[in-house]
Amino acid sequence: MTGSSFRLLASDGAARVGEITTPHGVVRTPAFMPVGTQATVKVVSTVDVRESGTDIVLANTYHLMLRPGAERIAALGGLHDFMRWPYPILTDSGGFQVMSLAQLRKIDESGVTFRSHLDGATVALSPERAIEIQNLLGSDIAMQLDECIQLPMARAELERAMTLSLRWAERSKRAFESAPPGRALFGIVQGGDDRDLRHDSARALVGIGFHGYAIGGLAVGEPQDLMLRIVDEVAPMLPSKQPRYLMGVGTPDDLIECVARGMDMFDCVLPTRNGRHGLAFSRFGPINLRNARHAADPRPLDEQSKCAAARDYSRAYLHHLVKANELLGAMLLSTINLSYYQELMAGIREAITARRFENFRREINDEWGRGDLPAL
Amino acid sequence: MTGSSFRLLASDGAARVGEITTPHGVVRTPAFMPVGTQATVKVVSTVDVRESGTDIVLANTYHLMLRPGAERIAALGGLHDFMRWPYPILTDSGGFQVMSLAQLRKIDESGVTFRSHLDGATVALSPERAIEIQNLLGSDIAMQLDECIQLPMARAELERAMTLSLRWAERSKRAFESAPPGRALFGIVQGGDDRDLRHDSARALVGIGFHGYAIGGLAVGEPQDLMLRIVDEVAPMLPSKQPRYLMGVGTPDDLIECVARGMDMFDCVLPTRNGRHGLAFSRFGPINLRNARHAADPRPLDEQSKCAAARDYSRAYLHHLVKANELLGAMLLSTINLSYYQELMAGIREAITARRFENFRREINDEWGRGDLPAL
Repeated sequence: MTGSSFRLLASDGAARVGEITTPHGVVRTPAFMPVGTQATVKVVSTVDVRESGTDIVLANTYHLMLRPGAERIAALGGLHDFMRWPYPILTDSGGFQVMSLAQLRKIDESGVTFRSHLDGATVALSPERAIEIQNLLGSDIAMQLDECIQLPMARAELERAMTLSLRWAERSKRAFESAPPGRALFGIVQGGDDRDLRHDSARALVGIGFHGYAIGGLAVGEPQDLMLRIVDEVAPMLPSKQPRYLMGVGTPDDLIECVARGMDMFDCVLPTRNGRHGLAFSRFGPINLRNARHAADPRPLDEQSKCAAARDYSRAYLHHLVKANELLGAMLLSTINLSYYQELMAGIREAITARRFENFRREINDEWGRGDLPAL
Repeated sequence: MTGSSFRLLASDGAARVGEITTPHGVVRTPAFMPVGTQATVKVVSTVDVRESGTDIVLANTYHLMLRPGAERIAALGGLHDFMRWPYPILTDSGGFQVMSLAQLRKIDESGVTFRSHLDGATVALSPERAIEIQNLLGSDIAMQLDECIQLPMARAELERAMTLSLRWAERSKRAFESAPPGRALFGIVQGGDDRDLRHDSARALVGIGFHGYAIGGLAVGEPQDLMLRIVDEVAPMLPSKQPRYLMGVGTPDDLIECVARGMDMFDCVLPTRNGRHGLAFSRFGPINLRNARHAADPRPLDEQSKCAAARDYSRAYLHHLVKANELLGAMLLSTINLSYYQELMAGIREAITARRFENFRREINDEWGRGDLPAL
């Protein structure tokens, strides 16, 4: 695979700042990717997604292949045009959702067959078809098909899935050779919580050669210390000149801890999902707007935020919207949360560049530790 | 009541163009007021409400008195600050929702007692309290408390409710004397579908004297021809130098027909409610985005619309969002519908000013009559 489009700009300890160049623009790393499952970041307009400081969104192959269909999106000009997001898009391979959402799935060497969770139709997904779909969608960064399994799991089963994923990685790479130039393909390190399997997986993937490497099979409910241990073990095995993506992670604290361990890219539904449930992320830590302490509070969520919604609306109004089940509450809080995540990433990048990442990490943790403003 | 703040600028037949000056700015009439029931126009940001061409929104006294409470909103700086809408607001009196939503309501001369639909609490609403609440909210235009009843209804009952509403109108006016200067109070003509009762109501209200006059008790499920007959009968009885407001109306066709009969103001949940259900209003008539004919259609809803969402997104994408129950669909269609309503009102005002309202009415009806674009 010729030349990665990743440029390393600065580092501080294991933490790195870089840039990924894609056909739809530059992604500043460490990067947080909001999740646009069904060709929309839930309840946030693309204008607000962009204004939050987002360089790249993730879209789900599994959902889009089922509805409206990859061929349909291609006929409509591709995913960027379809959802009016002219900036970089990463697509997953569909593997994770096949495991978590589809019914009656059957895995063999060739790929996976499953029944759609929408209409029960039988659908086949192979490594080659996963790449074809991602090419049809027109994503800037595609992911190999892998088999993702729950933890804890017996070692033999972890090994079986990991080695299958490696064979699928090779097939994915071959299938990707016909992709238009400029697009990137990432391999996915599997192996569960087994250090040796993770090492074998990482070493073999690097041998095959990808534009970037992801750590998969985490963010499936395991405790944070287990996740950090695996990142500690795997990240140093990945080529320093290519981007490293930790799939499905995580909380603001997860992001800082994994950047500290050398990871560059993240995706997670938390900012938008929590926003739909009345929960705000902030420099004061998480804030539950449903709580009665906000009912008469004229103060904004955070007067220092770069996000207008976090500065302009009172906590009392946000509380009212959440209590009254008004969707404007979900709209504002999802935007506020995305903005908080992206402000955090911008702060991380700035701190690494200034070689003061450890100080930044401590300051942020101190701020979270102080908690929310005292009630009025 | 000293000087109405209404200026008549042009007329064409019975149709009129004017301006209402309020403490929060000018309302161009004929005006359509989006409904912001719980201090938010559902699923539309105030920025998009304004950009649609909206001069004034309506908020519901009944909902806001129950949650978060009028005193709370006053303590937070009033409704304009609370919902970040620094432009004109009209509040209804709460009467209509007491009749349609509250449980165990009891009406007597003093007012109405009911149980909140939220928590069952017993709440009293009198003409004086309705004015006090609207003053606390800080609305620019307040409405008298009235008793609104369903049609069809026996004449004796219509008469009882109408005469009670008149006595409440007098008390409302007295209570409003303490309102800050610049705010307006409208009386509400009742009398159901009885021509004589409507005349008696209108005459008596004009005798009491208000800044403007509303026709109430319509848009409760009656056929359009009955509504138009009542407007035909009542509108000419209302002072030409004051604004005339038809409450709860209506479809785009209702608006044109009632403007033609001399009405100046309207409010309705249709554009936002239909938007949440996948229905678009357009110059091609109503369009159901759920319909499979849009699934592969790359064309925008209306390339000539002034609304970016109606121009920029494909019908296929809107269809996808609606089918996938993505709230972005409701957000875009609510904004598209508000924009369509406000473009229609702007066209109406322009046509009246140019004394070509009848032509405009015919052109719009011809356009609607041709229906949607042929399928591709």
